[in-house]
Order: sequence, then structure tokens, then C-alpha cells
Amino acid sequence: MFEKNMRLAFLLDFYSELLDGHTGNIMKAYYHDDLSLAEIAEDEGISRQGVRHVIKKGEEQLEFYESRLKLSEKEGAITSALNSLAEISCRLDGITSPELSDIKLSLKKIITTLNLKEL
Amino acid sequence: MFEKNMRLAFLLDFYSELLDGHTGNIMKAYYHDDLSLAEIAEDEGISRQGVRHVIKKGEEQLEFYESRLKLSEKEGAITSALNSLAEISCRLDGITSPELSDIKLSLKKIITTLNLKEL
Repeated sequence: MFEKNMRLAFLLDFYSELLDGHTGNIMKAYYHDDLSLAEIAEDEGISRQGVRHVIKKGEEQLEFYESRLKLSEKEGAITSALNSLAEISCRLDGITSPELSDIKLSLKKIITTLNLKEL
Repeated sequence: MFEKNMRLAFLLDFYSELLDGHTGNIMKAYYHDDLSLAEIAEDEGISRQGVRHVIKKGEEQLEFYESRLKLSEKEGAITSALNSLAEISCRLDGITSPELSDIKLSLKKIITTLNLKEL
């Protein structure tokens, strides 16, 4: 049984830069471009078994990095904080008060900065 | 010339979990506990030159991880956003309005959550 695990596709977004070029290409072809083992084997000029082996090793690396750095978990916390900040921003916009105008602007800037950073 | 670079001490906070145990211990002894090469050499039962070699390799790994993941850079952006949110929270506290009470509470919760996560 060799099924695509969407959790690993997600981890690949965070850690692909830490994989060597060959492994990174194969992992992206498999998880992001949704190619089959056979298609990747043909593109790379290696056996289907070879592709499977590279993917298996790559998956182990992704799990290792996540177990140590927990970036996907942290990303979840930031996304949730950003959603809550956006909600606060909307609610503030609904309140008319000259005292709030600076605050509204500052909050919008923070949200934009955090979004742009794609943290 | 072999000087302690405080940028590397900072990077060690982010990536020490990715170093092997031996390298991690020596790097922490050097950068966090501020031991000398000679002291570490004695503790580890290896030569001073051996310690220097491990530290050099460890530093290269830290720079590699930072060049790929940029966690220390991202941490800076989040810390700055947190400071700005704390300032907004203070300013909101200075405005008396029943409409704001929920918003003040939500904002404080977001700040606490982000702080606790040590992102």
C-alpha cells in the first residue's frame, strides 16, 4: 500500500528547501504535481521502485524536520491568530470613534505585514 | 582568529534540534554556557582542535538551515507584530466604551496565545 498522504504534501511546503535537489524534485512531482510513480520514473529515467525509495526517504526527512521544528504546527497557530485579528479589525471598523482611527490603521498594517511574510 | 559570533548563538536557538547530539552539546557549551575551547575539550575528552572542528561544522549547518528556512528572520517579524499588538491593546484599554470590551479581551487572548507558542 502506497498512498499519498496529504499531511506530507503540507510538510513539503515547509521543508522542501532542506531536501537535496533530486529528492525535492521527485517529492514535488509526486505531491504537488500529482504525477504517478510510473510517470516520475519515466521523467527521471529511473525505475518505479527507485522513485518509491526516494519518496520514502524524503517522507522520513520531512517527518524528522517537523518532529524537531514543528513549523506546520506553528503556522496553524499564526493563521488562526491572523483570522482572529481580521475579525477584530472588522468589528473595530463597525465602531465610529475618532479615537479609534489610528488603532484601526495600525492593526490593518500588522495584519498585512504578517500575511505578506507568509509566516 | 576564532571569535564567538552572537548571530550564531541566536541561530542555535532555532536549529539546535537539527544537530546531532554530540555537535549540539558542544555548540551549546560554547555559545550558551560560554565555555572555552579548552574547557569543552577537557569535558568531552577530545582535543582542542577537535572541538574547533565540530563547532566549525556546526556553524556551517546553522547557516545552511537559516539560509533555507529563515526562521530567525521570521521570528523578528512576529516579535515586532506582537509588540505592536501589545501597544494597540494598551491604547484600547485607555478608551472607555462598552462596545470595546469583547474586542479588548479577544486581542489579549491572541497576544497571550502567540507569546505562549514562542513562535
